[in-house]
Amino acid sequence: MSSFVVALDVGGTSMKGGLVSESGVVLLTERRPTPREEGPDAAVKAIREFISHLAASGDGIPSGVGLAVPGLVSENSAVYSANIGWRDVPAADFTALDVPVRLGHDVQTGGLAENVLGAGQGVDDFLFLPIGTGIAGALILRGEPYGGSAGWGGEIGHIPVFPDGEQCACGQFGCLETYASAASVGRRYSQRAGLSGVKAEEVVASDDPLAVEVWDEAVEALSLALATYTLLLDPSMIVLGGGLAEAGPALFDPVRTRLVKRLAFRDAPPLVPAALGVDAGMLGASLLGWRAAGRPDLGPGWTVNVRSAPLVS
Amino acid sequence: MSSFVVALDVGGTSMKGGLVSESGVVLLTERRPTPREEGPDAAVKAIREFISHLAASGDGIPSGVGLAVPGLVSENSAVYSANIGWRDVPAADFTALDVPVRLGHDVQTGGLAENVLGAGQGVDDFLFLPIGTGIAGALILRGEPYGGSAGWGGEIGHIPVFPDGEQCACGQFGCLETYASAASVGRRYSQRAGLSGVKAEEVVASDDPLAVEVWDEAVEALSLALATYTLLLDPSMIVLGGGLAEAGPALFDPVRTRLVKRLAFRDAPPLVPAALGVDAGMLGASLLGWRAAGRPDLGPGWTVNVRSAPLVS
Repeated sequence: MSSFVVALDVGGTSMKGGLVSESGVVLLTERRPTPREEGPDAAVKAIREFISHLAASGDGIPSGVGLAVPGLVSENSAVYSANIGWRDVPAADFTALDVPVRLGHDVQTGGLAENVLGAGQGVDDFLFLPIGTGIAGALILRGEPYGGSAGWGGEIGHIPVFPDGEQCACGQFGCLETYASAASVGRRYSQRAGLSGVKAEEVVASDDPLAVEVWDEAVEALSLALATYTLLLDPSMIVLGGGLAEAGPALFDPVRTRLVKRLAFRDAPPLVPAALGVDAGMLGASLLGWRAAGRPDLGPGWTVNVRSAPLVS
Repeated sequence: MSSFVVALDVGGTSMKGGLVSESGVVLLTERRPTPREEGPDAAVKAIREFISHLAASGDGIPSGVGLAVPGLVSENSAVYSANIGWRDVPAADFTALDVPVRLGHDVQTGGLAENVLGAGQGVDDFLFLPIGTGIAGALILRGEPYGGSAGWGGEIGHIPVFPDGEQCACGQFGCLETYASAASVGRRYSQRAGLSGVKAEEVVASDDPLAVEVWDEAVEALSLALATYTLLLDPSMIVLGGGLAEAGPALFDPVRTRLVKRLAFRDAPPLVPAALGVDAGMLGASLLGWRAAGRPDLGPGWTVNVRSAPLVS
């Protein structure tokens, strides 16, 4: 019998679960919706049921459970999530199984996976920046995710890149996220062009001058934020992920050029694409599960190929 | 015989040396000019002579030597300083004495002193920001100064707070330092008012509308930089030091108000004044000296009162 852990990446919309073996084989992945609108208790119950279901699909009893969740998180408690609405949920409440459980912050757990298994392998100090509906970063410092004094760090999506800029949904002005998230790029172009529901990838591909303008502002906002990060934290590299990173050279090339231009007295760190895609959170959760099981040594050396694993959704 | 270390804070203009006992008594402090214009070899020689002189003033042989130096630094080597001009000077070259030596980055060493002995005692995660002729910060993360992947971190003085702003002496545009350092505040007001050599403290105290405007821009630049730092790194507190912090409430009150206003979804960390003043670097160097001597336990519990120590200059 091969031992395995249950790994779960809990998002605001859906949950991605998996079983991951001791040697890093993704035995199974499966997706379920997050019943966010039914309140926090329903979400915890749905997570518990999903974990039991996943565990039952495995061969034997899991060695541990790892969960990546949004909001403020400690290893042993989901402290707070505005998105899901819970407060102070102990790790043990997330599973009916009598196995060790460990929690991690969603973006930081993705960063952990990119550090151990992905684009940041062997790199102790880097920024993992997934750009999706929103923007938050995982700061990997001295080889571990760093969340700040109370776990609220990494909010690079809300640093004021344009001090007199547009108001963000968060209430602040000129936030990176309000210019450069995938959702913002789509929204800002749609508004300017008098259209509705245009997607970021369409804006990136368009040669409509309004689209070029919106994309240019997104690139400028990103290069400002990355210049700031570089000057403050001197990373070895910056790993860009999330939906917007799928734009490839249309994103990387102009951001790199502007970042280099912004920095006068130091080199820019390399910008590299994330390696684990949407699986980063689940894979990071599997590392947490193995850590909970007393196997912090697992991870380095794994060859993960999640895309070929069965995805039931 | 009481044991002691030699501590030296090497600045671009002057060097501040001291002898510090095992119990944190500052036995002596003394200042000498840094012969920067005579080239790096002369600077190293002057440091060596100063250390020998300080050591000879003590009662016996020092247990160790600690130095705070500018630029890029490792524990064992002064790697590079644009200011002084040296490259790859081994720690042992700085002293003729056969005792253990440890180097530290000047601002980070000041941050270490504020962490162990000053305003950040018992605080694991904070920013130490001395605002003087220039601006650089020491990031204290998980209880230790953090310099980034290669030691170039902490350059908060050169983050682009106003993306389309004035060009900084560093070549970049809109840097915090070019608006908010003591030198910049004096320079910007002098230029606008058609005067020369006005000092920052005079600008702060003046009710000339041009002075009010320059000071307002400095405060705005600082609050933007501190909002960015807070969102990225979630510090427990921000410790402001250097000459400009002598402005007291004229600095702290408006920066605090604007910082709170900039942050919509999280609290602002407390802004507190540095406790060690111009002695932070020398005191931090003494901690490095004791660490070199195999006494990393020393520091916590010391009651330092440097201002009453004899200052020969």
